[in-house]
Amino acid sequence: MGFLNGICLVKCLCSLLLTSLVFILRIHAAPENTYIVHMDKTLMPKVFSSHHSWYSSVVDSLKSTNIASSSHPPSSPSLVYFYDSGAHGFSALLSAEELETLKMSPGFLSAYPDRTVTVDTTHTPEFLSLNTYSGLWPVSNYGEDIIIGVIDTGVWPESESYKDDGMSPVPSRWKGKCQEGQEFNSSMCNSKLIGAKYFNKGVIAANPGITISMNSARDTIGHGTHTSSTAGGNYVDGVSYFGYAKGTAGGIAPRSKVAMYKVIWNEGRYASDVLAGMDEAIHDGVDVISISMGFDGLPLYEDPIAIASFAAMEKGVRVSSSAGNNGSHLGTLHNGIPWVMTVAAGTIDRSFPGIVSLGDGETITGWTLFPANAIVQDLALIYNKTLSSCNSSVLLSNAPGGIIICDNTGSLYTQISEIAVSRVPAAIFISDETEPSIIMSCPGVVISTEDAPALIKYVTSNKEAKASIKFQQTNLGTKPAPAVASYSSRGPSPSCPGVLKPDIMAPGSVVLAAYTPNNYSAVIGGYIFLSSNFALLSGTSMACPHASGVAALLKGAHPEWSAAAIRSAIVTTANPLDNTMKPIRDNGDTNLSLASPLAMGAGQIDPNQALDPGLIYDATPQDYVNLMCTMNFTQEQIMTITRSKSYNCSNPSSDLNYPSFIALYDPNVSKATIQIFRRTVTNVGEGSATYKVKIVQPDGSTIAISPETLVFSKTYEKQSFSVTINYGGNNKEKVSFGEIVWMEENGKHKVRSPVVVSPVISS
Amino acid sequence: MGFLNGICLVKCLCSLLLTSLVFILRIHAAPENTYIVHMDKTLMPKVFSSHHSWYSSVVDSLKSTNIASSSHPPSSPSLVYFYDSGAHGFSALLSAEELETLKMSPGFLSAYPDRTVTVDTTHTPEFLSLNTYSGLWPVSNYGEDIIIGVIDTGVWPESESYKDDGMSPVPSRWKGKCQEGQEFNSSMCNSKLIGAKYFNKGVIAANPGITISMNSARDTIGHGTHTSSTAGGNYVDGVSYFGYAKGTAGGIAPRSKVAMYKVIWNEGRYASDVLAGMDEAIHDGVDVISISMGFDGLPLYEDPIAIASFAAMEKGVRVSSSAGNNGSHLGTLHNGIPWVMTVAAGTIDRSFPGIVSLGDGETITGWTLFPANAIVQDLALIYNKTLSSCNSSVLLSNAPGGIIICDNTGSLYTQISEIAVSRVPAAIFISDETEPSIIMSCPGVVISTEDAPALIKYVTSNKEAKASIKFQQTNLGTKPAPAVASYSSRGPSPSCPGVLKPDIMAPGSVVLAAYTPNNYSAVIGGYIFLSSNFALLSGTSMACPHASGVAALLKGAHPEWSAAAIRSAIVTTANPLDNTMKPIRDNGDTNLSLASPLAMGAGQIDPNQALDPGLIYDATPQDYVNLMCTMNFTQEQIMTITRSKSYNCSNPSSDLNYPSFIALYDPNVSKATIQIFRRTVTNVGEGSATYKVKIVQPDGSTIAISPETLVFSKTYEKQSFSVTINYGGNNKEKVSFGEIVWMEENGKHKVRSPVVVSPVISS
Repeated sequence: MGFLNGICLVKCLCSLLLTSLVFILRIHAAPENTYIVHMDKTLMPKVFSSHHSWYSSVVDSLKSTNIASSSHPPSSPSLVYFYDSGAHGFSALLSAEELETLKMSPGFLSAYPDRTVTVDTTHTPEFLSLNTYSGLWPVSNYGEDIIIGVIDTGVWPESESYKDDGMSPVPSRWKGKCQEGQEFNSSMCNSKLIGAKYFNKGVIAANPGITISMNSARDTIGHGTHTSSTAGGNYVDGVSYFGYAKGTAGGIAPRSKVAMYKVIWNEGRYASDVLAGMDEAIHDGVDVISISMGFDGLPLYEDPIAIASFAAMEKGVRVSSSAGNNGSHLGTLHNGIPWVMTVAAGTIDRSFPGIVSLGDGETITGWTLFPANAIVQDLALIYNKTLSSCNSSVLLSNAPGGIIICDNTGSLYTQISEIAVSRVPAAIFISDETEPSIIMSCPGVVISTEDAPALIKYVTSNKEAKASIKFQQTNLGTKPAPAVASYSSRGPSPSCPGVLKPDIMAPGSVVLAAYTPNNYSAVIGGYIFLSSNFALLSGTSMACPHASGVAALLKGAHPEWSAAAIRSAIVTTANPLDNTMKPIRDNGDTNLSLASPLAMGAGQIDPNQALDPGLIYDATPQDYVNLMCTMNFTQEQIMTITRSKSYNCSNPSSDLNYPSFIALYDPNVSKATIQIFRRTVTNVGEGSATYKVKIVQPDGSTIAISPETLVFSKTYEKQSFSVTINYGGNNKEKVSFGEIVWMEENGKHKVRSPVVVSPVISS
Repeated sequence: MGFLNGICLVKCLCSLLLTSLVFILRIHAAPENTYIVHMDKTLMPKVFSSHHSWYSSVVDSLKSTNIASSSHPPSSPSLVYFYDSGAHGFSALLSAEELETLKMSPGFLSAYPDRTVTVDTTHTPEFLSLNTYSGLWPVSNYGEDIIIGVIDTGVWPESESYKDDGMSPVPSRWKGKCQEGQEFNSSMCNSKLIGAKYFNKGVIAANPGITISMNSARDTIGHGTHTSSTAGGNYVDGVSYFGYAKGTAGGIAPRSKVAMYKVIWNEGRYASDVLAGMDEAIHDGVDVISISMGFDGLPLYEDPIAIASFAAMEKGVRVSSSAGNNGSHLGTLHNGIPWVMTVAAGTIDRSFPGIVSLGDGETITGWTLFPANAIVQDLALIYNKTLSSCNSSVLLSNAPGGIIICDNTGSLYTQISEIAVSRVPAAIFISDETEPSIIMSCPGVVISTEDAPALIKYVTSNKEAKASIKFQQTNLGTKPAPAVASYSSRGPSPSCPGVLKPDIMAPGSVVLAAYTPNNYSAVIGGYIFLSSNFALLSGTSMACPHASGVAALLKGAHPEWSAAAIRSAIVTTANPLDNTMKPIRDNGDTNLSLASPLAMGAGQIDPNQALDPGLIYDATPQDYVNLMCTMNFTQEQIMTITRSKSYNCSNPSSDLNYPSFIALYDPNVSKATIQIFRRTVTNVGEGSATYKVKIVQPDGSTIAISPETLVFSKTYEKQSFSVTINYGGNNKEKVSFGEIVWMEENGKHKVRSPVVVSPVISS
């Protein structure tokens, strides 16, 4: 176990003692793992008064069998969680032997090992055109009384984003609570932060003897404070990230309620805890679940998010989740779950220019987030090949005083770090890195390779070359924006490729939101770590709560809509254009080509348009089951998700009534393929309406719609149509895309669905 | 001249070319210096239409004489300034020969070489008990319409402190203007900053060919922006020094007008420019002059501040000046001018605690001004003798990561600098330095030698010693405060020891006021220089504008009072007690003994008390002349100051009617000395009043007053009394002090005069 490997002294001895203690308790026990076990509740023997006692009995019987067979003492409590709302079953520490026995128990559906989750900010409401005059904010009263459950790393309750000025009382339907714990008491909740619970039995089960460093819903990581304040944070004036992005911070649904379910720990991130958190959130009565994390490479029936969100969907709880940060290759997406809204990340129309003024009066604008107003005024520019790779702090520390120019060689991150620990007063980095997610720990500016030649020409032709740099600048209205962030994971969804994912794009890059002051959000000089109550973070984790906030607002505006209806409204009204009125581009594509729906779904989320979508593609729980019935799942696997026999596979159909289309082709076969989809739309506009279709054909394929006109005589009337996608067979692994738009005759509504023709991605 | 000394290349060649050009113009001219020349205006020959033409003619004649005698071409314009208001005369570039000729010109009074000046901030209004409910602020309407002329380094007009929200229009009596110049146009003034002029002919004359880097009233140093905003800055919300001293900044007279006279330059600081600035300020019609600089070791008749302020005093303009930062030895004071108010610097009841939390739960509070919210959390404490002198960044860079403890050895400044450029994440410095004027460029805290043993004991007895440090903390109400700042220069005044100086103490240490963003006000890591719009500065330069602001408020409240009356009101109502109600202490005294009037004058300025002093010690211009008549000055020297023959020496008297007393004794002679002073007080209270004297006797001396009761039957009535100070002869170079207090019978007024018995300080 490496306890005595070298430098470890006093601390390790203590650990050794603690660990030995645990060994005493668990001595001779067979190796165990936590398994998540799904059960068929309907098969509970009548002798049990509750499911909990049944599950306990099942586990106890395994243990007693075990004792009998091996005469070992029973292991200490092996039940980790009961699951009731998001799943039916439990998690428990089981040996392989016990697991096999369990599988023979009546009511057993499925079991799989616990696993770790991958964790994926405030000008954004303005960027999304939310405003106090019209549209979704005033109509929904800013999300008043809507409860957003955030499954994350916890919350920093002292953050000003959770102050409850101007908030309505806690709704009486709320069953959640403010769980006491380390540095967290129940008075820390209020009428904004209405609940906070924590779930770490999975971490503890997987790491026996571990000490949980913050055993409460208090956020020690910052991620949950950031995501929850993005979705539902109250207004806070005069915030900034070290002088950047100055202004008023506010969540997308600033009058909504926030409930935090902490499932991610410094000590680990386990599926069993995630499932427990979601289970509890559904039980407590949240309206929206925002979950900025995901499990990679899992089938739906082993993915706790997929499992719990099915139950959520049944209850009308809208679940938004992040697509992941594994872009930009195809098929990298997680949370590609048909009954959740999967959110990609886009850029924002805000930039942080670092302005370099050369001695000759010329100006070069790069970007910087150096966290202080450094004075870099008329310093010598230094450009020589000994230094310009900027990868040796030893060399750099002996450089002449001035602004070092760093060539576009090697890692920008390394260059910044090396400069930061050198005695260099400032630097200019040449790099095409455009998303300033890298911490700028030295007074430096990143300029593009396009702008570099002018700088190099000036410095090489002037022996007294000088420059000044301005920091703490913020520009709004940057164009083009949004673009798809390069890191945003791409569809098709490995777990369900036939449903186009992601659904939507929302702001995810360099988002300002509340943060935990105990975590650094900037560094100076490589060893000085700085705290801020608001931080700029990037990721689909930041995009997801934007979509969750919009879902909360829509729930406020349309309380009767199903989760599918809300998603449909968001998808069909999304904006495929950027602020130059051209198609949104993809930063993950080195040619900066147009973003495909596999990168951004239908496009940028447009909250005010989603308020009034005209038509809705709805789906019932059975519709999702019909889809699963075509996926080669066993009945137990399906029931692991559905938890009920009331669904059936009598009408299996891969053709889910989804507001988008993906036609997959085998890239190894060059032949034409015809795929036919059927859809039914519901008129949610006022009274009668006539829609005509408009098609944008994908390259190398044709789309035909029948009929091409839909006539509705009243609200809530449904009409069906078919979509025939004829793939020509010559795309050679290329993704092509088009769109189907139902245009209302009076021009009031436009119902747009993205269409993708994509090769099947082999996993 | 050292033009080719080594490293200097292109830049020096340019300088050489420029300098050569000047040499061409001035070739073969005899060596010249700028002289300030004082003239008797009454002796102007009638042929001249103006004094300017007379002065020009005098200079021209010198030059033509010179040409005639040596056949050299005439030097280019040698007249530097005309002086009209603060002095009569001019300054000019003159050779020694020309000077001798000039001395024989009719009307010549005196001439002396130009010389350089020594340049000596917002919770302070609150600390001085200024408030919106009662007292000087509301009575004076916050100094509305009073014009404060600040003689300094210029002004940063964009500073929010000069915004004119809520300001009354510019008074019609104002003759000043907003002088155009480099990066300064006339639209930069407004109804707060009503004037800005600049004076650098003296710098240019002394440094031929020099390029003035900012040829306008724009402040490139920060000093003038700080002092002028301290005296008269408007309110600015939400300011801080990098998170310290957060709050609303505002000047002492927030509704007053500010006019800036820039006389200090990056290129030099010359008496001729200072005299020109004061001359102009008097001409323009300022009500108060605030001058935070001084000339050391000059007789009154060669001190431009003394000269110009005599003219100012005649016109009722109140001049406040700084005592200097050469404390804490006796006799180090400058600006000890009988007709100005000389201001010492005190501390403020505000501290910036750096809180060290040890791993055992104990807390040690030191101080820090590290300019960022660094996270120093549970880091190892490192204390070993190899590192603890903290004087080698080479050694420190290889230290294990953690908080280095630095012993109280060597210079704190050096230790901080060495830590800052090392890769040390944090440090604790042991030092009794209590005034945080040192820039804290590393995440460090200074703890006292008194608190050090607890820290050392903890670290040496715990192998896993850890600590955390909190930054950006501000405490108010620190006790005791004020204390005399150690740097504040002390009396007696070398130029006039018989008048007790300084007059008063005002807040000078760690004062927050506006600053120039182009100058750094903090450093991180030794090479990252940070900008702030508000800075904390310390010095008598910061104390002086506090007194100037109070003088402006008093002018608003009592427009009829003379400069002497205002000073008397401030002196006799000053507070000799700190906020523990004990006598103010002296930080410059290693034993922290009680502050003598030679350190703080009458004590801490108390604006609200000064509004209603009861009795006034007034003085006329002739009274000051009578004093000068006893100082072995020639008639020309006196007239250099007075500029007029209307004064005479028929009643020479060293006994100025001053509100304080200094009895000097010869420290080399141990014999008793009796000194008798006569004073006349004017009743400025309402109607009749009876005062009885109360005496606090100085150690080793006795004070007797006659009469001991003063009865006034009406307002403005005068009464005289005598003060006999009998020095016992045994003080042996010690300063002792006491006080004379006239107590009104009804208890309403207390008129307190400090008394000092001091050895003569040999210069």
